[in-house]
Amino acid sequence: MITIPFKNEGQFLYEEIYEFLKNEIILGNLKNSEKLPSKRNMASHLAVSVNTVDAAYGQLVAEGYVEAVPKKGYYVCEIDTYLQNEKRAVSKNKVETEKNEIDGIDFSPNMIDQRIFPYDAFRKIFKATFNEYDLNLLNKPDIQGEPELRKALVNLLYRSRGVVCTADQIVIGSGTDHLLQTLDLLWGNSKEIILENPVYLKAYNIFEKMGNKVISVDIDKKGIRIEPLKNHKNVAIYVTPSHQFPLGISMPIDRRIKLLNFANKEEQIYIIEDDYDSEFRYNEKPLPSLQSIDKNGKVIYIGTFSKSIAPSMRISYMVLPDSLLKTYLEIADQISSPVSSLEQRMIAAFISGGFFEKHVNKMRKVYKEKRITLMDALGQLGDQVKITGENAGHHLLIQLNKGLSEKEMCERALALGVKVYPVSPYFIHGVSKKFESMVLLGYGSLTAEQIYEGINLLKKAWEL
Amino acid sequence: MITIPFKNEGQFLYEEIYEFLKNEIILGNLKNSEKLPSKRNMASHLAVSVNTVDAAYGQLVAEGYVEAVPKKGYYVCEIDTYLQNEKRAVSKNKVETEKNEIDGIDFSPNMIDQRIFPYDAFRKIFKATFNEYDLNLLNKPDIQGEPELRKALVNLLYRSRGVVCTADQIVIGSGTDHLLQTLDLLWGNSKEIILENPVYLKAYNIFEKMGNKVISVDIDKKGIRIEPLKNHKNVAIYVTPSHQFPLGISMPIDRRIKLLNFANKEEQIYIIEDDYDSEFRYNEKPLPSLQSIDKNGKVIYIGTFSKSIAPSMRISYMVLPDSLLKTYLEIADQISSPVSSLEQRMIAAFISGGFFEKHVNKMRKVYKEKRITLMDALGQLGDQVKITGENAGHHLLIQLNKGLSEKEMCERALALGVKVYPVSPYFIHGVSKKFESMVLLGYGSLTAEQIYEGINLLKKAWEL
Repeated sequence: MITIPFKNEGQFLYEEIYEFLKNEIILGNLKNSEKLPSKRNMASHLAVSVNTVDAAYGQLVAEGYVEAVPKKGYYVCEIDTYLQNEKRAVSKNKVETEKNEIDGIDFSPNMIDQRIFPYDAFRKIFKATFNEYDLNLLNKPDIQGEPELRKALVNLLYRSRGVVCTADQIVIGSGTDHLLQTLDLLWGNSKEIILENPVYLKAYNIFEKMGNKVISVDIDKKGIRIEPLKNHKNVAIYVTPSHQFPLGISMPIDRRIKLLNFANKEEQIYIIEDDYDSEFRYNEKPLPSLQSIDKNGKVIYIGTFSKSIAPSMRISYMVLPDSLLKTYLEIADQISSPVSSLEQRMIAAFISGGFFEKHVNKMRKVYKEKRITLMDALGQLGDQVKITGENAGHHLLIQLNKGLSEKEMCERALALGVKVYPVSPYFIHGVSKKFESMVLLGYGSLTAEQIYEGINLLKKAWEL
Repeated sequence: MITIPFKNEGQFLYEEIYEFLKNEIILGNLKNSEKLPSKRNMASHLAVSVNTVDAAYGQLVAEGYVEAVPKKGYYVCEIDTYLQNEKRAVSKNKVETEKNEIDGIDFSPNMIDQRIFPYDAFRKIFKATFNEYDLNLLNKPDIQGEPELRKALVNLLYRSRGVVCTADQIVIGSGTDHLLQTLDLLWGNSKEIILENPVYLKAYNIFEKMGNKVISVDIDKKGIRIEPLKNHKNVAIYVTPSHQFPLGISMPIDRRIKLLNFANKEEQIYIIEDDYDSEFRYNEKPLPSLQSIDKNGKVIYIGTFSKSIAPSMRISYMVLPDSLLKTYLEIADQISSPVSSLEQRMIAAFISGGFFEKHVNKMRKVYKEKRITLMDALGQLGDQVKITGENAGHHLLIQLNKGLSEKEMCERALALGVKVYPVSPYFIHGVSKKFESMVLLGYGSLTAEQIYEGINLLKKAWEL
């Protein structure tokens, strides 16, 4: 008969019995088809209650170690010996968590000013939105995005960017990268993808990783060149006309019209307009979006709340032309929405309550001041520094005509505790002479003091 | 000289001037290279200030309608005529927003009981998490998931599912669908994907849409069959061993070991274990996960908070074996995380604060009662109804041996205001005889009264 060495180490009795029998089966001490003692016998043998044995046998049956044969009893099942591979001992390769912080001054182009975030408005909105009497609060979000957010966007996009659309055309995504993945699924790799060079790298990587034919087209001073597009008939062209990323060029109207007219030539040509930081334009009122000029349903308009609210909220939106809606809905139906409905509703309330525009106006003012400060500080570096891309967004570019390479510029700055960002990684086929010795300076998160101190340190680092 | 018919309809003066000149250029009334009046002349002609004209000209220059030539003046740029396609008038095909609600009784397998959600705990956690002194609050989330959530999961998964891993192996995704997409990117379509039949359809669709070779393997009463897997050497096998979706089978230990041993034979074989509702098992303690038995790094473990917290929060997690981490990090680096960091932190606090386990225990009790109620109600239908898959999750299956087809069962039920769900859509190659006349009954969101009433109505509908 079986003897169980009870240890009573915080386990239930039934668990000890279960564990013991399980191991005996795994070790082969209890063999296939062997009959276990009846529950009553086992209980009396172990001096425990029948219920305890019943619980242990029940668990063994549920997991498939033992089979209960009605009116006969409990039998051990046939279990294969588990093979353990010899090469098992893979060394734990400690993965370093990405850290973007440095102790000094970080001219990151991806950061915003946390100090002016409307914390109180968000608290109020959370309180109002997180309401247990709302029976949809915990349900799966609408595949295309929560209706209230899409409705709020229809008005906002019309007022701010001249975008004309209905809520049915809007798709809410968890960031621009996710929306680009959705477009890829929609086209199923059937389209060539043309991107600007230099380019928002993640766009390039996503389309390439997903198996598309990806073509890079150089930009000139007006944006993407039109000539190299000719002969492409089934293509999507990804552009950032408001504020080319990373060079900061704003595409003038003649190039916009040339681009749209190119798209108008073939049914299968679309333009993806990534309007990622259009809210932040300082000298003039924002340029009208490509989508607002387009009369033929050629433009897919993409925007994000990363810059205008916070990068921590992964919410972006796209406006699809009618011609893509049917296919989109077929695709969307097959994949759940990745965007939290609570945050979608909070942002909807933030927009409809008028908080969004107020906040953007405030931010625009703050960033404008930061930009003036940075321009002033850069002025002290003299005419060895050329500034571009300064009219919009949260970053600008500076170029040295002093013979320092981009790499030297970044390294020397870092040695003094200042982080500036190279522009070369955004170029797909190497950097042309025109863009050598150029770095990105973001100013979204810095104070005036930090900006002056940072530029002073750069002056030292680069011996200007 | 130009005459501008000021309308003063809530526009700024400079906007009216800008709009007027822009249209003149578009219409061709102001031609390429034509010189505009100087700002001073224009101002005096229109009886407005020079600043007003300056703003209008500035906007025209910014948008590329006009060029400012230093020391010479403002010249009209060359703009192509914009082509409007004739086929423009695409009729607005009103897209219906998906509505899942019906007025009667909905036995949906995807709904949870909103009444027991811990609203107050979440309010407290929001208050504590949404803290302006936390300088990371608004930053982009860690690509792999917020460290605090990953750490909390290491302990939780070990305690609840025997999963052994480090925080470095955990990836936070915006739902299971997103994690499957990530795996696809990681393997770059190089692997065959084997899925159970019947199957969680979205898994099937995602892998197929993303261009993989997808193979369906029938299940028997123990889960996926092992024999058809032979000869596949570079393959990922997607399974739901705790509670097969949709049939509710729990894979017994011998099949689990057979499956793991199959994976152990080749380096390029992986198992995707989708443990989507393992928290809800009512008769025995939960079965150990495949991952907890695996000693060779063959199992990718996937879990979700959709069932245990709320479907509205799009947060799932996966545990990657060491051998996949390096490639994962290369991919992850190229795409931003789609998961809101605020909600990640809130869930981390929900787990670390002990709220999660308390909540799950409460829910388990509630769902267990609902299940007992449903079983009791079904008992009244007599032996024409066979019940399966009732030991776990939020749904079970019933099969009629009365000659009604699945379609008739659903339609007749709906005619009396009761929604039951067909099982056939989950079968990839048509339903075998064994699974005919079978429907899914979910009970997550229903009260006892609704369950009794619903089953009574089904009795009438099906004439039992």
